[in-house]
Amino acid sequence: MTKEEFQALLDHSVKEARAILPQGKVADYIPELKKAKSDQLGIVLTDLDGNIFASGDTEQAFTMQSIVKVFALIYALETLGEDVVFEKVGMEPSGASFMEMTTLSDFSNKPSNPLINAGALVIASMISQDIDFQQFLDYISGLCASDGLKVNEAVFDSELNHSERNHALSWELKRLHLLTNSLEDTLLFYTRGCAVELTARELSRFAVILANGGFDPLSGEQKVDPDVVKTTLTLLFTCGLYNGTGEFAVRIGLPAKSGVGGGILAAAHQRFGIGAFGPSLDIYGNSIGAIKVLSELSAKYDWHTFAWNK
Amino acid sequence: MTKEEFQALLDHSVKEARAILPQGKVADYIPELKKAKSDQLGIVLTDLDGNIFASGDTEQAFTMQSIVKVFALIYALETLGEDVVFEKVGMEPSGASFMEMTTLSDFSNKPSNPLINAGALVIASMISQDIDFQQFLDYISGLCASDGLKVNEAVFDSELNHSERNHALSWELKRLHLLTNSLEDTLLFYTRGCAVELTARELSRFAVILANGGFDPLSGEQKVDPDVVKTTLTLLFTCGLYNGTGEFAVRIGLPAKSGVGGGILAAAHQRFGIGAFGPSLDIYGNSIGAIKVLSELSAKYDWHTFAWNK
Amino acid sequence: MTKEEFQALLDHSVKEARAILPQGKVADYIPELKKAKSDQLGIVLTDLDGNIFASGDTEQAFTMQSIVKVFALIYALETLGEDVVFEKVGMEPSGASFMEMTTLSDFSNKPSNPLINAGALVIASMISQDIDFQQFLDYISGLCASDGLKVNEAVFDSELNHSERNHALSWELKRLHLLTNSLEDTLLFYTRGCAVELTARELSRFAVILANGGFDPLSGEQKVDPDVVKTTLTLLFTCGLYNGTGEFAVRIGLPAKSGVGGGILAAAHQRFGIGAFGPSLDIYGNSIGAIKVLSELSAKYDWHTFAWNK
Amino acid sequence: MTKEEFQALLDHSVKEARAILPQGKVADYIPELKKAKSDQLGIVLTDLDGNIFASGDTEQAFTMQSIVKVFALIYALETLGEDVVFEKVGMEPSGASFMEMTTLSDFSNKPSNPLINAGALVIASMISQDIDFQQFLDYISGLCASDGLKVNEAVFDSELNHSERNHALSWELKRLHLLTNSLEDTLLFYTRGCAVELTARELSRFAVILANGGFDPLSGEQKVDPDVVKTTLTLLFTCGLYNGTGEFAVRIGLPAKSGVGGGILAAAHQRFGIGAFGPSLDIYGNSIGAIKVLSELSAKYDWHTFAWNK
Repeated sequence: MTKEEFQALLDHSVKEARAILPQGKVADYIPELKKAKSDQLGIVLTDLDGNIFASGDTEQAFTMQSIVKVFALIYALETLGEDVVFEKVGMEPSGASFMEMTTLSDFSNKPSNPLINAGALVIASMISQDIDFQQFLDYISGLCASDGLKVNEAVFDSELNHSERNHALSWELKRLHLLTNSLEDTLLFYTRGCAVELTARELSRFAVILANGGFDPLSGEQKVDPDVVKTTLTLLFTCGLYNGTGEFAVRIGLPAKSGVGGGILAAAHQRFGIGAFGPSLDIYGNSIGAIKVLSELSAKYDWHTFAWNK
Repeated sequence: MTKEEFQALLDHSVKEARAILPQGKVADYIPELKKAKSDQLGIVLTDLDGNIFASGDTEQAFTMQSIVKVFALIYALETLGEDVVFEKVGMEPSGASFMEMTTLSDFSNKPSNPLINAGALVIASMISQDIDFQQFLDYISGLCASDGLKVNEAVFDSELNHSERNHALSWELKRLHLLTNSLEDTLLFYTRGCAVELTARELSRFAVILANGGFDPLSGEQKVDPDVVKTTLTLLFTCGLYNGTGEFAVRIGLPAKSGVGGGILAAAHQRFGIGAFGPSLDIYGNSIGAIKVLSELSAKYDWHTFAWNK
Repeated sequence: MTKEEFQALLDHSVKEARAILPQGKVADYIPELKKAKSDQLGIVLTDLDGNIFASGDTEQAFTMQSIVKVFALIYALETLGEDVVFEKVGMEPSGASFMEMTTLSDFSNKPSNPLINAGALVIASMISQDIDFQQFLDYISGLCASDGLKVNEAVFDSELNHSERNHALSWELKRLHLLTNSLEDTLLFYTRGCAVELTARELSRFAVILANGGFDPLSGEQKVDPDVVKTTLTLLFTCGLYNGTGEFAVRIGLPAKSGVGGGILAAAHQRFGIGAFGPSLDIYGNSIGAIKVLSELSAKYDWHTFAWNK
Repeated sequence: MTKEEFQALLDHSVKEARAILPQGKVADYIPELKKAKSDQLGIVLTDLDGNIFASGDTEQAFTMQSIVKVFALIYALETLGEDVVFEKVGMEPSGASFMEMTTLSDFSNKPSNPLINAGALVIASMISQDIDFQQFLDYISGLCASDGLKVNEAVFDSELNHSERNHALSWELKRLHLLTNSLEDTLLFYTRGCAVELTARELSRFAVILANGGFDPLSGEQKVDPDVVKTTLTLLFTCGLYNGTGEFAVRIGLPAKSGVGGGILAAAHQRFGIGAFGPSLDIYGNSIGAIKVLSELSAKYDWHTFAWNK
């Protein structure tokens, strides 16, 4: 298939997926997120040769929300190593049931994994001790090949004002001696990270690094250690989409991470890095339109991790 | 690398792994299982060309225990289809915490997935309505290329006499209208399935079908539908090793299913089908020796599902 | 106040309480119970001198349901003693949340108390080993001064056909070695007990024994040991009305036990034994009309356990 | 029995109870509490005529800890009324399992009752909005007939530095819109209340008010509304001693509240107000010596709420 054919198929798929956007709804648990335009949908795929295929609202900035957990995990694994990281956070699927929230009693000694809020707070605590937020932002920008991602301050403020559960989780983590930095710094670092804005195009650039063993095909640099990528992809596959994780793994079969801002990061291993955006969410809090497009593409091109003949 | 070199490496790995067997212990929750010899360890790998590499106690018969859930799932998916199966059982990791047991309150509407006991009982109920146990045994034998697997009646009796939890689960499933056959038939069918004996060699023969998109390289037959294999491998990857699933996925990275009889089934996708046996178990109820060998082989040959360069 | 005045007040209270009966609804979890007439309401009070005050539908037989747990507890305490009984069942409020059901995971080692289903099954197991059901029925009849209470066989059959949760609980109790008789006998004994029919008048006769330190003022016999009565009243006060227990204790302040058949047993300590019946139930599964009458009487006559000036 | 005989019995009982003090242990979850002398034990009983019987270490000041919840509840009920109070906190036993701690998931809409930490924080939030801490301290002092109770600042500081769980609970309460004052003020108010020091003698003076329908026999004043006392005694009886509540109710049968500082407040309804102190605690966190003495006295004098012949 030619690039043009693939692009045409992609455009067709995005166009068709717009029809189901009204079946989802925009996140409303914080006022600022409600402002998102529910009819937007965009996706960017970058292949291992650096070819880029974009369709829809790919230049619309959105806040990363939970997707920042992936950047934080990678930074922690790269700088601190697996032993240090997994001493304070597990690597098991949690079976948790609502959005990105987990109740305190879901963990006894440590959070189940780094992709639920409790685990992400532990990671945020680790790395905020090491670098300041601007340095982390520069790190993220580097992975996205952006010349400078920014925090959406209005979203950050709104989120901070509605972060009671994260405060509760943090205090419980402190009680369990799982915070290595101050509780306040941990929370600010994490919450600020959730409010970092980027586009589907930028997210795709990071995703291709994950699909490509840590190597950025466009810049020609090894940006992440291959073993860190391997661990990250595994956790995305087993824990990345809240309690829709299992169904996504069975049906679509890609390591992925979603955010309630409407973003989805996915990696078709050794094929494509994918950044998608569509703020209309399904009942699990995942972009309903992006899931639809990913489902079609994965089926058509046998991207499923356990597909035959790939 | 030549076959001889690979065989030598395998022998070396099995030999070394025997040293850690004393760190585990044989399952003791039913009397019959306690009789297993804790110093045994064997592994058989079958590649996609039908080459077989065996080392250790590969002809020792052991009872499948939870591994039967994989055969039952495949039978149900093949004959009833995904829609029927997943109407009564989920596809989400459960985060369950002890052995293969799940408490009733872990599910509200239906069991999390087909690989926890509650889910396996639902599947057993479905298929026991369709065929009698001997037919199911023939089906399993066919997948293992055995001329006739047998039930270990002593283990079956012992297990049936210690199946209070499964009875409790079954009654709760009945209350939720999730049993399609009688409770008694469901329980007998499932419990009998757990007591089917086979060797690592036979298990490996089944495993290569899973690694090979459903095609048996030795008989030249398409034995399982590729889509059923895909779904099965995904569930093995996300739910196959009790609450050691996440760690196994991160560290070793293979779809696998263990049984408290000491067996492990694993599939290195598009590479090898693996049957292993070693009744000395780690704290999660998985064969400690088999895990060690798999860990070494996976690392050395980059079998990890999300390894680069495979 | 004269007896006539009290009777007039009682009649007035019952008449007024009928107005709220439509706000409740008849138990519908088993078909036979649905047949109850939702507009019925009756109450009988027996004082320590043996005076009886009756109003409303006091001769309508109804099945005891959970109220049988009180008779069973008393029998067990009298014949086996506190040490034996409380070795296998606790004495703590459970905080359980729905009807008389408790999920298995609500107890780890033993059921919280003898008034939740799991605890009552343990008690049923103890006493069914000691006597047959007819003997137990004779014992109950004796406490109610009836010449022969009967089991409503239609209710018993219906209930047995909808006893999946109790089967599940029983298997879990068996697993925990808390059943002293066979599971089948335990379940039959308990379920049959729930289907024993009596009238509010008969229930009142038993209640006055509880209000009177075990002494039946009408027959002049000491029917229950005073210490057994003391323990029983305490458990009724702290655990008797499902998850409406706390509110009933605060607002009305009497040791009491309700059944989903619409019966309520209450004891105004050293004052009155009360049997009430009204099948229209509130959201906790307690007779909405009987609660209303008890509430008024308790307030007017300072029956609250911790009222002043009594 | 003469007063002298009763005093002699009391002295004997306290002396004997000292023998079991080594079986308990002093609270150690905050450093300051560890300083308590484990061999101390004292009890003061005040009857409705104002006679005082004291034995042991009755002048040793100790911090109230959870006992302050009783003062706070009474203040809230008196000033805000039952409707306002129970809109934000329940009146059901919680079945909670450890000390005074409750996990967040134990309540969905509101805390079970005002005597678990979560409920007490809700009450503290209500009253701290109304009065400042000194006013509350004056109120407590008034009920204890003290000329000025004081906060043990070292205990307060120590406790504040170990209040992670209470912080977590408070944030969760804030999320559920159950705090009517600021989170910080709520926590400080509650934590400071726990550190108020008093003696068994002072506690007994408050207790007699509870035993006497709100009337202080020594000052001749009606200090608490009788209905508030009634509600309070009920909650003490059903929820006052953590998860030892049920056993205490069955065995000893008095409304009571304990604190991990070693204090116990108990009311023998219409008989005695009791203040006891002994920092050596049993496994439930209740003073092991005080429980022993109360057990003996209650049995000997039939103080049990549901005893006959009182």
